[in-house]
Amino acid sequence: MALTVGVIGGGQLARMMIPAAIDLGIDLRVLAENAGESADLAVKQLGDHRNRDDVLRFAESVDVVTFDHEHVPQEILHELVARGVRVHPGPDALLYAQDKLLMRRRLSELGIPVPVWARIETGEDLQLFLDDNGGRAVVKTARGGYDGKGVRIVTSPGEVDDWLALGESLLAEEVVDFRRELAQSVARRPSGDIVAWPVVESVQRDGVCAEVIAPAPASAGKLADVASEIAHTIAAGLGVTGVLAVELFETTDDRLLVNELAMRPHNTGHWSIEGSATSQFEQHLRAVLDLPLGATGCRDRWSVMVNILGGPDSGTLADRYPAAFEDQPTVKVHNYGKEPRPGRKVGHVTAGGDDLDQVVYQARAAAAHFDSGDLG
Amino acid sequence: MALTVGVIGGGQLARMMIPAAIDLGIDLRVLAENAGESADLAVKQLGDHRNRDDVLRFAESVDVVTFDHEHVPQEILHELVARGVRVHPGPDALLYAQDKLLMRRRLSELGIPVPVWARIETGEDLQLFLDDNGGRAVVKTARGGYDGKGVRIVTSPGEVDDWLALGESLLAEEVVDFRRELAQSVARRPSGDIVAWPVVESVQRDGVCAEVIAPAPASAGKLADVASEIAHTIAAGLGVTGVLAVELFETTDDRLLVNELAMRPHNTGHWSIEGSATSQFEQHLRAVLDLPLGATGCRDRWSVMVNILGGPDSGTLADRYPAAFEDQPTVKVHNYGKEPRPGRKVGHVTAGGDDLDQVVYQARAAAAHFDSGDLG
Repeated sequence: MALTVGVIGGGQLARMMIPAAIDLGIDLRVLAENAGESADLAVKQLGDHRNRDDVLRFAESVDVVTFDHEHVPQEILHELVARGVRVHPGPDALLYAQDKLLMRRRLSELGIPVPVWARIETGEDLQLFLDDNGGRAVVKTARGGYDGKGVRIVTSPGEVDDWLALGESLLAEEVVDFRRELAQSVARRPSGDIVAWPVVESVQRDGVCAEVIAPAPASAGKLADVASEIAHTIAAGLGVTGVLAVELFETTDDRLLVNELAMRPHNTGHWSIEGSATSQFEQHLRAVLDLPLGATGCRDRWSVMVNILGGPDSGTLADRYPAAFEDQPTVKVHNYGKEPRPGRKVGHVTAGGDDLDQVVYQARAAAAHFDSGDLG
Repeated sequence: MALTVGVIGGGQLARMMIPAAIDLGIDLRVLAENAGESADLAVKQLGDHRNRDDVLRFAESVDVVTFDHEHVPQEILHELVARGVRVHPGPDALLYAQDKLLMRRRLSELGIPVPVWARIETGEDLQLFLDDNGGRAVVKTARGGYDGKGVRIVTSPGEVDDWLALGESLLAEEVVDFRRELAQSVARRPSGDIVAWPVVESVQRDGVCAEVIAPAPASAGKLADVASEIAHTIAAGLGVTGVLAVELFETTDDRLLVNELAMRPHNTGHWSIEGSATSQFEQHLRAVLDLPLGATGCRDRWSVMVNILGGPDSGTLADRYPAAFEDQPTVKVHNYGKEPRPGRKVGHVTAGGDDLDQVVYQARAAAAHFDSGDLG
């Protein structure tokens, strides 16, 4: 059977697919924009994912096309499919990860609980929404936002004048009164099978995922069942293939509302590399190749992942290895091979064990070695 | 800190270092003899490990040199060291993995328990040894043997006439009456720290490792302590850097005798990829870079590794994935990317869990899908 998988995009998600590909003897080929990106080792072609010719040429060299990000234009994706290329997730699913307005509408149609939302075309639209929703709203550009970019909390229409002037399609949502954020990942094969990992808690800082606890504390039972059912319904309803991550709000009145979707391995699933019987990266490759999916149970009672954001002010992550490894010999370090830069996701660490307080401590202590500040 | 590690040899051991290198942002560069070898993804130079110029040129591009195998000639290794290259393990240690006669002598000097042995130069030497040891002996070529090659059990000197005629240095050993074979792996940094994994049981078939159970059943306590102490003594006494695997006989009268040494990650340590807090491949990289070593505890009560020897008569390992994955969703499959060929190590599987019988069953069942025989 043919095992050549092409990944469009050379970031850390493509990078972390490489170990899984090596294990399974999968020939992973990456299309990256620039030399030296995170997935450099598997880069076989440099090119622009928005350029039809680059993508078509790349697709000719692989059995299945999948993604490190969701930014390949629909018309290119559809042309790939028309030419018989296996594209997972396919364009009809990926559309809902590319456009938040379409996503909100489609989820509402599927009966999935979402925050109160409206399409905003004018300042008047937004004023109306503010009036109906306590004078505050989260406004998002429908396309192109990630990690807190393209998201503003506003109390007056003037605060998004620049976006409106650019003719951006905007989505307004209620400011959800949430207790915490959760994430539910599932994987779905083209032939339909779906498996779910345990629902996890994700702690955001400045709109960026900072920590993940797997499974989410106090989630056993109904909460886990509802989260899993939501993700199953979305994966099947949208025809997602590969990994789907559903970001959720757990509201103060005990509801789960869908925040965002990602149709690829996701930061909230990095814990699964060590923490699950099957990592999200292996599972994504199995799924896009339409192979039977792996078990998704937890290998430790608790897994905690902490992102390394920014990295050291001077030097490299590796300069901190002696101190970090000495301090935390059980913690696993993942270095994305990226230059440190404020706020940038340059790596993560994962700890696991029986005692949540201790596991959180270990993961944070290891990650702290890679924070800004000079070597002590 | 500099993190470019050069591996001489492009086999599956070099291949399995790649995921660990990706995790830690290590630039792993492999010198392989031929294109398309198992570690192909990280091959940066083709060349002959017995060719001085090839090895010297390769060494110039890396911070540390280490090995996929033990076959680099001593004179080349010493020249590397003389030129200031960091070589781990160094030539003075590696010598004892290259020459079984020197190894036996040195271990005897260190007070390590070994089988009764003698150097054989003539048929008369061997006859004398046979007379003293019940008429049977294991005869090995001092150099070049592995996986049962270069090893014969003999009852008369005539059975090694061909080796003697070639002027091979031979080692004769008593035929040890053993209950089972064990293996003890440790890792040692140049600065001296040593860590040990649990002792494991290794089941050999036709002189080749077929299965490994980690930890070895009924090994807790004295047996584990003695095995660990033996490996610590050898690692420190021989100045080994990186991973050292010590193959042991557990005799029917409850002694441990050292059989073979390997100064690199070893087949009996593959279970550690999933089964230990730190895999032998990550640990080897940490050790040769003189970084603090990782924890070596077991992640499951039992881990069982089964080799895929030979592979299918027709088709590829991947052709068997649908059936194997469907049948055993928790088992991890490692495909070395090699052409199937009778007896060849083309991959392995690892299972883990609380119930040893079940774990053995799962690993064997998964591996059986990759055995010879047509697709059912």
